Parts: sequence; C-alpha cells; structure tokens
Amino acid sequence: MVETAHSPFVKDLITVLDWGGTFIFALSGGLLGVKKRFDLFGVLFLSFVVAVVGGITRDLLIGAVPPAAITEIHYFLIAIVGGLVTFWWYPSLTLLQRKILVLDAVGLGLFAVIGAQKAIDFGINPLMAGILGMLTGIGGGMLRDLLAGEVPFVLKGDIYALAALTGGAVVSIGHVMAISPSISMLLGAAACILLRLLAIFRGWRAPVARWGGDHD
Amino acid sequence: MVETAHSPFVKDLITVLDWGGTFIFALSGGLLGVKKRFDLFGVLFLSFVVAVVGGITRDLLIGAVPPAAITEIHYFLIAIVGGLVTFWWYPSLTLLQRKILVLDAVGLGLFAVIGAQKAIDFGINPLMAGILGMLTGIGGGMLRDLLAGEVPFVLKGDIYALAALTGGAVVSIGHVMAISPSISMLLGAAACILLRLLAIFRGWRAPVARWGGDHD
Amino acid sequence: MVETAHSPFVKDLITVLDWGGTFIFALSGGLLGVKKRFDLFGVLFLSFVVAVVGGITRDLLIGAVPPAAITEIHYFLIAIVGGLVTFWWYPSLTLLQRKILVLDAVGLGLFAVIGAQKAIDFGINPLMAGILGMLTGIGGGMLRDLLAGEVPFVLKGDIYALAALTGGAVVSIGHVMAISPSISMLLGAAACILLRLLAIFRGWRAPVARWGGDHD
Repeated sequence: MVETAHSPFVKDLITVLDWGGTFIFALSGGLLGVKKRFDLFGVLFLSFVVAVVGGITRDLLIGAVPPAAITEIHYFLIAIVGGLVTFWWYPSLTLLQRKILVLDAVGLGLFAVIGAQKAIDFGINPLMAGILGMLTGIGGGMLRDLLAGEVPFVLKGDIYALAALTGGAVVSIGHVMAISPSISMLLGAAACILLRLLAIFRGWRAPVARWGGDHD
Repeated sequence: MVETAHSPFVKDLITVLDWGGTFIFALSGGLLGVKKRFDLFGVLFLSFVVAVVGGITRDLLIGAVPPAAITEIHYFLIAIVGGLVTFWWYPSLTLLQRKILVLDAVGLGLFAVIGAQKAIDFGINPLMAGILGMLTGIGGGMLRDLLAGEVPFVLKGDIYALAALTGGAVVSIGHVMAISPSISMLLGAAACILLRLLAIFRGWRAPVARWGGDHD
Repeated sequence: MVETAHSPFVKDLITVLDWGGTFIFALSGGLLGVKKRFDLFGVLFLSFVVAVVGGITRDLLIGAVPPAAITEIHYFLIAIVGGLVTFWWYPSLTLLQRKILVLDAVGLGLFAVIGAQKAIDFGINPLMAGILGMLTGIGGGMLRDLLAGEVPFVLKGDIYALAALTGGAVVSIGHVMAISPSISMLLGAAACILLRLLAIFRGWRAPVARWGGDHD
C-alpha cells in the first residue's frame, strides 16, 4: 500500500475489507473451476486469478510495481484457502449460491472503493480513478470467465460493472469534494452493494440496444 | 507522451491522428458489442478496450507507466462517445460497414506508426519497436474478439497484422536511416493503409500452411 | 537480466537454457497455429506469444521493465525461427509429437527455474517467487490456448502447472537454505522435468473434485 495521510482506522478498515473481498472472490473462482471439472491446481489457479487479477491490473496501470498481490503473501494464502474450501465443500457451497452472490456483491463493493482510493493515492485523476476502481472489482471475474471458455458475464446485461463503477465514482467524487476517504469509501461501497442487490433480488438490468444479434 | 525532439507540427499531427484512430477503433468495439447483445456497459467497455488496450500494452512494455490512456482522460471520453454512437445508431453504422472497414484501415495505420515511434522515443531497439507498433494496432482488436468469445480474426488469413507490421517497420527503418519522424510516420501509415485496402478490395490474403486442420 | 552475484558459469547456463526453452515453446505455439489453420502471421504470432508471454508477465510483475523479451531481440528471432520451422515442416513435426512433448517438459523446467530465480534476484519473497516461476512456465501456453479458442489445458487435470510449481519451489527453497543458485536451479529443473515425464508416460494426473460438471 502507498503511504498516505489515511488515519490508522482507515488503514485497518481497508485491510480487513481487502482480505474479506479477496476470500469471497476466491470462492467464486473456485466454484467455476470445480463446475468446469478443472483439476485441483486449475481450481486453485482460478481462485487466485479472481482474487488478485483486478488488483494486479490496477497496480500495473497506476505504476504500483511490483503489485501488492506479489509482494505480500497473504493475498495468495487467502486465495488458496478459498480455493481449497470450494474444492472440498463444493456441494455445500452450491446450496449457498444465493448467499455467495450476496457476499460477492460485498466483495465487489470493497474492491471497487479500495481500487479507486489507491488510484487517487497514486495521483491518477479522479475520472480514471473511478474507472480503475471498477476494473479492480470486475477484472478478476472477467479473466475467470475467459479462462473457463465463457464470454465474461459482466458484459451481458447484468448490473455488475455499473455497480462497481458507482462505487468507484462515489470515492472519486468524495475526493474532489475533499470528503474524508473513510466516509466516501463506506458510502461508495454501500452504493455499489445496494445497486448489486437490487440487480440480484429485483432483476434490475442494464439496457441492451434494440438491435443486434448474430443474425445481422 | 514522452518529451522528444519532435517539432510542434509533428506533435500536433500525432495528437490528431491518435484521437481519430481512437474514435474509429471505439466504433469497431461498439459494433461487435451490440451485435453480441452486450448491455450498454458491455458495449462501452468493449469500445474502450479496443480503443486503448493496444496503446496500454505498448506503454506497459516500454515502461511508460502510468499509460497515457490512464493519465489523460480524452482517450476515455473519445472511446465512450464512439461506444454511444454505435449503441444508438447501430443499424445506420452496419449499412456503412464497408466504409468503417476503410476507416479502420486508417486507424490501424495511425496506431501502428504512433506505437512504433513512441517505442523508439523510449529507447527500444528498432526491430522490437516495429513489433510494438504492430501490437499497438492489433492489440485492442485481439482482446475485443477474445472478450466476445471469438478467435481473434487477425490470426486467421486476413492481411491485418502484416499491414500494421509494415507501418511499424517503415517507421523503424526511417529511424535507422535518420529520416525525419514526420516523413517516416506518414510513409508508414500510407503503406499500412494501402496494404490493408488491397486486402479488403482485392482479397489479398496471407499464406496458410498446406496442412493443418482439426482432423489431424 | 538483473546484475547479480551469479558466477559466469551460472550466467552462461541460464542463457543457454533460456534460449533452448524459448525455441521449444515457439514450436508448441506454431504447431497449434498450423493445426488451427492460422495464416503465416498468425502462426508466427502464436510462436512468439508462447515463447515470451510467460517471461514478459513475470518481468512486468517483478518490475523488470522493459521486459527482457522487448529489450533483447534474440527472443524474437528464436521465436520466429521456431514458428517458421513448424510452418514449413508441420507434418514431420507432428510425427515427432511425442518427442516434442518431452522437449516441452524440458522447456517448462527451464522456464520455471529461471523465472523463480529472476524473481528472487529482484527481491520478491520466496513463496511468490516460486509462483512466478510457475507462471513463467505456463503463461505462454495459457495465452496460446485462449487465442486458439480453447480452455487452457494446464487447468484441466494434467500435471503441468504442478510440475512447473515444483521447479520454482525447489529454487525458492534452495534460496532460503542458502544453496548455490546453480545447484538449486538444476535440481528444480530436474524435479519439474521428472514429474512432467511421469505425467506423460505413466499417466499421472492431478486430482479432480468428485463433483462438478455443467449439469449442476
């Protein structure tokens, strides 16, 4: 993490949220890996990918090299534990899929606001910092889907990227308005999670163009 | 952009070409996104990807971090406008597909020579600078196809990567021969565009091995 | 390459192994390219990708920018030669597929130990250095499969990533135990190659979860 003027409370908050989000994302990677009948190492690899690729992409793009997921080993360890959990308790987890979807919304919100804040801390302009927050949230899931041979689901009509973007945007707007990062991060995460839950439980969807389809 | 000895004219020329190429590439991303029935955010994401991923990859590889597409917001804004245009006027654009293919050839030429020149400005050797020019031109389209669940079309028998490589190579050769960058960039772009148009209108194709096929 | 305390013998050894691995990996890329009926440039591109993407990813992640495969042209030249060989002599090479699989095991072992050692030389902690060694070995093949429209085979039940990880881990453990890098690299490469050959000739496979499959 970059040295900033954040208070110890904000730093500890970010750490806890970051680790929690990492674990939840690792579960989502492991679940798809087992479903696709990947072997143990494929499952662990996919857990690791979902957990860290969004953050690694952000770090490469903002110049925070080597990325935190490489220099600090706990991201790796958390991701592996998440992968092992899905490998051994897959049937139990599939019964919890609805709850995991809710947890995933929480992870998305956490990653989006942490990603946007880190980009701001590295001097990226607020507009692109919001985008980088979104990318931190959705990057791992996109590569997960690509590696499993599927079109990334974030591109197809579900409110997922938009929720992440909302979270990142709140942090960026908070920065422009000189609001304390701890407040704007909590607000941003709440906005992202709320929007995502509305998508899950109310079926909210992003608009699709009236035309298109492969028959064109 | 790196500080170089380029004249103001060359700098302005590069800027105009760069923005024009970005817009054209964003259109090509948006068109595939609408065709694949991605939602609005998927379409905008794909526009952004095609417009900036080639340049971002080049910048990461030459050490120009953070990449220009992150530190400067106009790439993002241009890409979003391109995506919105395709989202709202998709049917009109499909009628113009032939013309868009020609514009895409122009975008390819521009990106290839700009990419090669930037690599040279960062001290990369001319051979790899030519390759990086090609990568700047084709990188966005490759990821576009991957995200849409297709094998990148640049790999399959159309003269596209070769045209981009030609553009980059002319810039590299010009550098070795100490020709003014403005001249070699115009020549390189012209060569790339000409080769690409011959491929489109005359059906020129790169050779395929006599063997192969999935039945092996 | 980073300046380290390695003896000239170790340096020369690394260079020879590195070039040999690059060539073998280029062959594997070219073979899939011809099989998928890519054109000449698609075949050469795939050869280049398999040969350098693992190392480029490692270099970006450890902060060795620009990556060696960009600043030094022999990686490119070796990859192109490998691609041309497969393009012209594909039928002969397919007859040698079993032997190429053995050579590929050797390339995997070399890339894994070189990658881990370079990460250690750049100050990455040993645990993640072992992972980066694995990534150096499998990264190119993963992107090769993705570009060819297939799920990366390293994720699906064959002992490949595990062999690469073993090679990287031996180097990391050797570093922690203060063993000379030349010895731990040779041991690591041998362990990786042995494990891979057992997978090829004895059918050893990594475990798959009892559940899963798309019918869930």
